[in-house]
Amino acid sequence: MGKYVSVRGWLECDESTINEVKKIRNDFTATYNEGLLGEDKLELYQSGWTFPEKQINWTAYVFYGADIREYHLDFMKKQLSEMANIQDITGYFLIDDHDGDYHLCWQIYENKFIESEQENIVFNK
Amino acid sequence: MGKYVSVRGWLECDESTINEVKKIRNDFTATYNEGLLGEDKLELYQSGWTFPEKQINWTAYVFYGADIREYHLDFMKKQLSEMANIQDITGYFLIDDHDGDYHLCWQIYENKFIESEQENIVFNK
Repeated sequence: MGKYVSVRGWLECDESTINEVKKIRNDFTATYNEGLLGEDKLELYQSGWTFPEKQINWTAYVFYGADIREYHLDFMKKQLSEMANIQDITGYFLIDDHDGDYHLCWQIYENKFIESEQENIVFNK
Repeated sequence: MGKYVSVRGWLECDESTINEVKKIRNDFTATYNEGLLGEDKLELYQSGWTFPEKQINWTAYVFYGADIREYHLDFMKKQLSEMANIQDITGYFLIDDHDGDYHLCWQIYENKFIESEQENIVFNK
């Protein structure tokens, strides 16, 4: 069955790029199908995306937060990797689980998706 | 005037504690007054809070994201320090600015508000 992992973080967009993020989110909700994610689960996980009602000064922060099945991490990774291609987008996500098997950090910067181990994190010990 | 700093991150709540967070947010919106924040600005900054429409599995992720005046950082810190008193709440926020003067990490864990320098962050270089 696979355990659950927590995925949460944000993307930093502006007025125009936020729509590109939304489009990729919608495309993944509508078309992603590698046999692993049922339609209900797909919609549940995709409901973890939050788009700001209004932008406060320059940055539009798009958030994601959900506890998902371990074997759906690849789905999130693919989705975020696609979003990493958007111009000037940056992002930061932490991924972990209760057993301590995962302590990952995903960062999006200069159109790259960068995975590393977490450092300096106390809040989820 | 003071420069702008970006404050973004999340709190991890459950069905009951999310309402305690909301209450503190509302109290700060209604009553905070140390002469620095005009009513319009206060409401603008407080609109950076996002509460999930529904909880996905166990955790209710409450997000905050806004670019705020440097001299309003104390307001956010006080608000989050108060939220840190909520039982079993955890939180993680990154704070920085374009000039590179701020590279802060705020974590909430075991009812403590912990400020440290950021480590391992590439996305906002």
